Amino acid sequence: MATINRNYKKLPGSYLFSTIAKKVAEYSAANPEADIIRLGIGDVTEPVAPAVIKALHLAVDEMGQKESFKGYAPDLGYEFLRDVIARKDYEARGCGISADEIFVSDGAKSDCGNIQEIFSLDNKIAVCDPVYPVYVDSNVMAGRTGEYDDELRRFKGVIYMPCTKENDFAPELPAEVPDLIYLCFPNNPTGAAMKKERLQEWVDYANKNGSIILYDAAYEAFISEEGVPHSIYECEGARGCAIEFKSFSKTAGFTGLRLGYTVIPKELEAGGEKLWPLWARRHGTKYNGAPYIIQRAGEAVYSDEGRAQVKAQIAYYMENAGIILEGLGSAGFDVSGGINAPYIWLKTKDSMTSWEFFDYLLAKARIVGTPGSGFGPHGEGYFRLTAFGSRENTIRAVERLKKLS
Amino acid sequence: MATINRNYKKLPGSYLFSTIAKKVAEYSAANPEADIIRLGIGDVTEPVAPAVIKALHLAVDEMGQKESFKGYAPDLGYEFLRDVIARKDYEARGCGISADEIFVSDGAKSDCGNIQEIFSLDNKIAVCDPVYPVYVDSNVMAGRTGEYDDELRRFKGVIYMPCTKENDFAPELPAEVPDLIYLCFPNNPTGAAMKKERLQEWVDYANKNGSIILYDAAYEAFISEEGVPHSIYECEGARGCAIEFKSFSKTAGFTGLRLGYTVIPKELEAGGEKLWPLWARRHGTKYNGAPYIIQRAGEAVYSDEGRAQVKAQIAYYMENAGIILEGLGSAGFDVSGGINAPYIWLKTKDSMTSWEFFDYLLAKARIVGTPGSGFGPHGEGYFRLTAFGSRENTIRAVERLKKLS
Repeated sequence: MATINRNYKKLPGSYLFSTIAKKVAEYSAANPEADIIRLGIGDVTEPVAPAVIKALHLAVDEMGQKESFKGYAPDLGYEFLRDVIARKDYEARGCGISADEIFVSDGAKSDCGNIQEIFSLDNKIAVCDPVYPVYVDSNVMAGRTGEYDDELRRFKGVIYMPCTKENDFAPELPAEVPDLIYLCFPNNPTGAAMKKERLQEWVDYANKNGSIILYDAAYEAFISEEGVPHSIYECEGARGCAIEFKSFSKTAGFTGLRLGYTVIPKELEAGGEKLWPLWARRHGTKYNGAPYIIQRAGEAVYSDEGRAQVKAQIAYYMENAGIILEGLGSAGFDVSGGINAPYIWLKTKDSMTSWEFFDYLLAKARIVGTPGSGFGPHGEGYFRLTAFGSRENTIRAVERLKKLS
Repeated sequence: MATINRNYKKLPGSYLFSTIAKKVAEYSAANPEADIIRLGIGDVTEPVAPAVIKALHLAVDEMGQKESFKGYAPDLGYEFLRDVIARKDYEARGCGISADEIFVSDGAKSDCGNIQEIFSLDNKIAVCDPVYPVYVDSNVMAGRTGEYDDELRRFKGVIYMPCTKENDFAPELPAEVPDLIYLCFPNNPTGAAMKKERLQEWVDYANKNGSIILYDAAYEAFISEEGVPHSIYECEGARGCAIEFKSFSKTAGFTGLRLGYTVIPKELEAGGEKLWPLWARRHGTKYNGAPYIIQRAGEAVYSDEGRAQVKAQIAYYMENAGIILEGLGSAGFDVSGGINAPYIWLKTKDSMTSWEFFDYLLAKARIVGTPGSGFGPHGEGYFRLTAFGSRENTIRAVERLKKLS
């Protein structure tokens, strides 16, 4: 008789953003007139840049002609895309990453969720707390954790690394050495960044202990300060201990187009075994590549025209971030983030729990945000707002929030 | 210290089609003048249909305008696509499958590879032999099999169901009851079809034993004979024992666009636990949807215009199949398939092994096919040719093959 993977039963409730979507849908159904402003899920609102649209049209036309039609993509992605990534995201920053160390995919979420498959089930993971839920949930599903502890609101067998105001929302090196360390900087959800010296300490720690750092750099394009690394490979020795994930979703508004990539240095090993061939095998066996037209769209992001356009979009969102930071700060909210990342992390009002504040904001201000506790126990009492709304909605949201305080 | 998933080390060599690609690249490098005809990998060659190209352009324009821009897709896929699938692929055939039982994805390969995750690691799988490698390899990676037996050329702990000329390349019900049964009909690689009465026996067997059938119907659009089911849900009781995978890759030439879907009936259970919520959870946690523009392209396949165009493409490929069948048959080859599927399955010449025949064909006729043994031990001595080449190349390939005999 077939039976299920019981690890799935350890997961409490549904995926965070599915829960939020359901709550908002229920509220909208009950209040059809309500003018809701969505600053919850980290989805972009600006249209895809003209240079990318142009590349998409051209590639669509190629698909419609026999001579230029493209079927299955190469396993690792098209060379035209991997080459430009290697040059512009790495070589230009002094990081030695070659095109054949880049695996093109349909986004960082899939890659972050799937990467754990190539590691042993008895590897112990460490995550920031609060944290993007995919890292933990994908390991729970695989059976790399224990049961969920309702009281502590944590999974047993996972090393949670608190990110609090006291440590500038960047974790301390853990006393118990993890095998796999998930780091995401600039951080989702807190919006905090990590300086290069600090990240170097993590690289040294991983190299010393034989740990692998799984580095999610999905928000690197939002970095505005000097000294904050755009890639972990800016740190010395990172090729020996780190896998890096990047996404076109936020950098270039590709949330609806789906494109990302993962970097695995050829010599990177875990327990004396190379990781590159394992990920290549997974790619070849369980995945069939990102669509040709989407890979051409990704290439266009690196053209002079495309680069200028996506930079302008990021500037627009970061102005939104500034408006939220400034407005909420002046209204007495305790806020952080929003300088090197499109997320603003704020303390809830009157010591409300994160979900109480979610319901309160939805009811009183028709604003949707993300409860900090959804990202982990140290997110309790916090709330995430995104800078991805329109300018108009961002300003209106800040005005509504000011009235509450 | 981090360590790897050692199950990956059980896999012998690389993924079949990666090996072929490498061999052909080496041959081309050594013989740059060689006029190679590729009938190996099952990739289409006809351009994407005009109605689909039109839908893609329209959707690309939507992505470029603020009012119509689309970010993250809904977890299960856009309703416009799921609705039309439910109506035209199921309701129209008398199968009761609703839109919310359809999960849109980037293709059947990903879904077939990932579906095993929701089942227990101690479930025993059964596969046809020969078989599409993804079913076995994804279970090996997960640890649901034993070691590879070099002599038997099989993984221990897997039930292999021989598909031979004697049983018309459709397996017998296995004596040892499997928990998970992978079936693919019309079949890749043999091109064999299964009549409805025969498939009904499998459904009854699975229902009696509490097994789950994982039914890959990627080639259903190529069925030309009456009495061959296009969906397993045409069989009575299939909602209680079957998951179905479908693909736009071959049906509509989407190998380079990437779109497929999986059907899980709401009431389907394994060991008393519903499967729909588990797959929904996996989709929500580790996947972010197929691109909006690709989902619009999929919708266009169901329009009157699109339907007529993709039917014409399939007719074109099936004429190729007829040319290969007829040509090789008259030249004395022992051939089958090619009537309800775009694959022709032939016995090698002079009792060569499949790989000997691969090398022989490449050297003597500059034709690339797929060695039958790459699909399993009972594929040894066989060879797969696809009907997906151009008409011109198909005719030239048949002429070259005739000269060999």
